[in-house]
Amino acid sequence: MKITTKTESFTSPLYLESGRILEPYDLIYETYGKMNQSRDNIIVITHALTGSHHCAGRYEDEAKAGWWDNLIGDGKVIDTKKYFVICVNVIGSNFGSTSPKSNMFPTKDRQEAYRYKFPVVTIKDMVKAQKILFNKLGIFKVKAVIGGSMGGMQALEFAVSYPNFAEIIIPIATTPMTRAWTVAFNKVAMEAIVNDPSFKNGYYDFKDFEENSLKGLAVARMSGYISYLSPSSMESKFGREYVGTDGIYELFGRFEIERYLEYNGYNFPKWFDPLCYLYLIKAINIFDLSRGFDSLKDAIAQIESKLYLIALKEDYLFNPKEMREVYDISRDLPNRNLINFYEVDTDYGHDAFLVEVDKFSDYIADILSN
Amino acid sequence: MKITTKTESFTSPLYLESGRILEPYDLIYETYGKMNQSRDNIIVITHALTGSHHCAGRYEDEAKAGWWDNLIGDGKVIDTKKYFVICVNVIGSNFGSTSPKSNMFPTKDRQEAYRYKFPVVTIKDMVKAQKILFNKLGIFKVKAVIGGSMGGMQALEFAVSYPNFAEIIIPIATTPMTRAWTVAFNKVAMEAIVNDPSFKNGYYDFKDFEENSLKGLAVARMSGYISYLSPSSMESKFGREYVGTDGIYELFGRFEIERYLEYNGYNFPKWFDPLCYLYLIKAINIFDLSRGFDSLKDAIAQIESKLYLIALKEDYLFNPKEMREVYDISRDLPNRNLINFYEVDTDYGHDAFLVEVDKFSDYIADILSN
Repeated sequence: MKITTKTESFTSPLYLESGRILEPYDLIYETYGKMNQSRDNIIVITHALTGSHHCAGRYEDEAKAGWWDNLIGDGKVIDTKKYFVICVNVIGSNFGSTSPKSNMFPTKDRQEAYRYKFPVVTIKDMVKAQKILFNKLGIFKVKAVIGGSMGGMQALEFAVSYPNFAEIIIPIATTPMTRAWTVAFNKVAMEAIVNDPSFKNGYYDFKDFEENSLKGLAVARMSGYISYLSPSSMESKFGREYVGTDGIYELFGRFEIERYLEYNGYNFPKWFDPLCYLYLIKAINIFDLSRGFDSLKDAIAQIESKLYLIALKEDYLFNPKEMREVYDISRDLPNRNLINFYEVDTDYGHDAFLVEVDKFSDYIADILSN
Repeated sequence: MKITTKTESFTSPLYLESGRILEPYDLIYETYGKMNQSRDNIIVITHALTGSHHCAGRYEDEAKAGWWDNLIGDGKVIDTKKYFVICVNVIGSNFGSTSPKSNMFPTKDRQEAYRYKFPVVTIKDMVKAQKILFNKLGIFKVKAVIGGSMGGMQALEFAVSYPNFAEIIIPIATTPMTRAWTVAFNKVAMEAIVNDPSFKNGYYDFKDFEENSLKGLAVARMSGYISYLSPSSMESKFGREYVGTDGIYELFGRFEIERYLEYNGYNFPKWFDPLCYLYLIKAINIFDLSRGFDSLKDAIAQIESKLYLIALKEDYLFNPKEMREVYDISRDLPNRNLINFYEVDTDYGHDAFLVEVDKFSDYIADILSN
């Protein structure tokens, strides 16, 4: 499978929900497979908080494949021999699209990163930017939009904001509006980041990115990890295993779960930017599919795509009932026959959308083949 | 109701589970009501992580009453006209009993606090110290031991370590052994504390306690607060309410849940010590009722008190099934008739043991009156 990574630059302003504009801006995206002549084999993948446009395949010498490689590829459920798959890095993320790390000025004469001057972007803004890119690429209609978590929010937003865009929309492990519980986890993350003196109130040195030791961002990641798992999955993965070399009565002796959180936490600042993290969790916090409508019901009434909501049974970040609510609300709407709800039987937690793909991939295969 | 607060000093060594000793040590405790002549009206209350010996009543000019004042007092469910109630501040806590903040040396010639030289204490050690105090006070048998959360762990430990001590034991919202999920929340707290430069690797100035601004400890508290609530209770308490003066598109604009976490988080260092917090969460992390026995079943087999396990339905810190397991295991033990399990129908979360006392107080009243 060939991986094509491209950056598209836009000089027209992106009008944001906040009333602010972003101008100019870049979008980096990746494609796999070939667009057919009738252009009816296009599948859009939307990524999650720490995801990127690199959702499948492996670059030369890359140790780890794209984040949904177990789902997307030649002969896989999202078959790149059949489909043309495209995934765009969202505005605000640190993998190449315009973000708080980007140069604020159109010309290269003055080099100053946005940092806190970057406007708050919303999920709707992210989707709008992608839509503009698709227009530029001559893509006006797609077979499907599929994404999990923050990617699922984008999928829902595509469904409501662009009713004629996708034949099928599959939001996974997400919510129509972020609840206090999720905001609370993000609050711990945000406070941990801004309190860290090495963050220097947002004026940390970008050059240190690779060798970054932003401890606040590490703690933020640990807080996130709790919400991505579930008590059951932690129990079966780690139980009460204690690190062999640590003493049980040492104050800083560690359980394996602690070593796991440390490892993932302290690695995080080496590949993710703290300002981008703040902006993306802000976008997640203020996500509300009903904004601009009188009610969530009015928003759902807009949908003309076939919507397949996939919830995960023991998702501790987005409770399945949040997605079921969308389904329930739709029951007395004219478009009710378009809206489906499926709850995956997994106790892994939120991250099952990444690591237990086999639990819902048959369902996706069915949807795509019908 | 008269509140009596006393400190008892011990010069004999306290032999700890770790093999280390603590010598000398103090225990501060509070009592309400009067011990009767036959000494059969004594109820021991055990406190939680941030609790203290002050579980009921109000000192002169005190704004807030003791932490279980809605349960304990004259004419209340735990009636101080009838019962002599005693509550001891645990070893390691910062309310007066010996802790990492205490002077390491027996004489006053040299003033140096333990800090990291304080030994790790376990729940069993906390209970042992209380038992030694009770012996000194001439209390060899009590009517009941009642406690929630870390206090519930102590109650369970009393049941297993001192089978002849209490007629009735009521552990609430707790677990027989701390699981990875809980350890994970504590890990975020621990990392937030130790990464904070104002913590100075444990050598922060105690004198600043009242005016403390240890931001790491504040973040630790926020992480704890998430686990004390539930998605449902956050939803009903805060929903998506936004702070009126904040802008939705401001990066640091806040939802009410964020303001609530900020408020409780940043207040915490003004009344709780970070080293004590580290030592107490360590004690919680390594709590395992089965330690020293071949199995949890063997530990439970020791119990001769009437045990009433009270679990909270939507407890996100200690899942009710953790307590149900104790009950289930006991079903084929000779002492099975002593062991009871009751699940309280509440969606408030873990903190219901403090704030929704009315949901299980009738049950406690029944237990005590039979």
